[in-house]
Amino acid sequence: MKLYDMELSGNCYKIRLFCALLGLQFQSVTVDLMRGEHKQPAILQLNPRGQIPVLDDGGIIVWDSLAILTYLARKYGNEQWLPLAAEPLARVMQWLALSENELLYGLARARAVKKFKRPWDLSQCQEHGKQGLAALEQQLNGRLWLADEHPTLADIACYPYVALAPEGDMVLDEYPQIRAWLSRIQVLPGYIGMPGI
Amino acid sequence: MKLYDMELSGNCYKIRLFCALLGLQFQSVTVDLMRGEHKQPAILQLNPRGQIPVLDDGGIIVWDSLAILTYLARKYGNEQWLPLAAEPLARVMQWLALSENELLYGLARARAVKKFKRPWDLSQCQEHGKQGLAALEQQLNGRLWLADEHPTLADIACYPYVALAPEGDMVLDEYPQIRAWLSRIQVLPGYIGMPGI
Repeated sequence: MKLYDMELSGNCYKIRLFCALLGLQFQSVTVDLMRGEHKQPAILQLNPRGQIPVLDDGGIIVWDSLAILTYLARKYGNEQWLPLAAEPLARVMQWLALSENELLYGLARARAVKKFKRPWDLSQCQEHGKQGLAALEQQLNGRLWLADEHPTLADIACYPYVALAPEGDMVLDEYPQIRAWLSRIQVLPGYIGMPGI
Repeated sequence: MKLYDMELSGNCYKIRLFCALLGLQFQSVTVDLMRGEHKQPAILQLNPRGQIPVLDDGGIIVWDSLAILTYLARKYGNEQWLPLAAEPLARVMQWLALSENELLYGLARARAVKKFKRPWDLSQCQEHGKQGLAALEQQLNGRLWLADEHPTLADIACYPYVALAPEGDMVLDEYPQIRAWLSRIQVLPGYIGMPGI
């Protein structure tokens, strides 16, 4: 299994983290976003969006972190990570959606403005991110995990850009439930970190 | 079944359209976004994000359009709409992710700037939206549907904000494959439209 990857990408880290928790081995192929390698033919022929992560699992190509997470859960995980019944599946999907919205366009973009000089409006991104943090803090009040009694893909998908939020000048001091949840993820068997966390 | 809904919301329309294709009846409860009703306690107690759509299916509350689509597909649809095997599931999820990224933060935001005077950078949104349109156009070259040999949730999730793109000053003239795909969706049995399409 091959992962087109970059160390500082939170979306790539989601996949590395989930593989580590599942005990899956893969070969990491570094794609240098700073040099625009993701917009070169080698990546574009795998992913029409010109983004990473991209997974190559014995010739099965999957792009997009959300799609790769669900692929790995179904192929190598179990229903703990991605339940199939309508209601628990919807619970997981709600937080996967939050990870693609408030967390990606809020927290991750704020981080990208500060860290990679991207051209977005920092305060708009931070404000959007805060809405996501507020929803997470409320959900985790009295719960250990976001979508079920145990960790699911929801926790894996939301974790990276929340943990990286301070790199976008977002402080987590006022979110005690979130901080406790980050700590719980960090002691899951197999857990790995990334620079900035 | 009750849907907290607004006629002009493309995300709400995704749910109305999918219910129509499945032949599901529901009661539409209008939430007036212009008057901020989605940030009032009645909605906030259902959805911590303060957004619509929200589904109430006999007391089971599901928020977020992506989560509601997967809920309805699993509960009332069949695997045609949301396959469960790893690889076809990943194919559907790829385009669901595109619908939450380039289409929502590109096309839908461009529309919201033009139509609802939202404060985002129009050209940034349009540029982001174009990347999504380019990926769709490439995927639909030689294919009838996005993720399989038949319509799936991928098509339902991507359709609304592509069809509404002209309201964000995006012309679809240079995307013949997309225009043919829009027409195919519009003749699916049970299809309904919305204002602007």
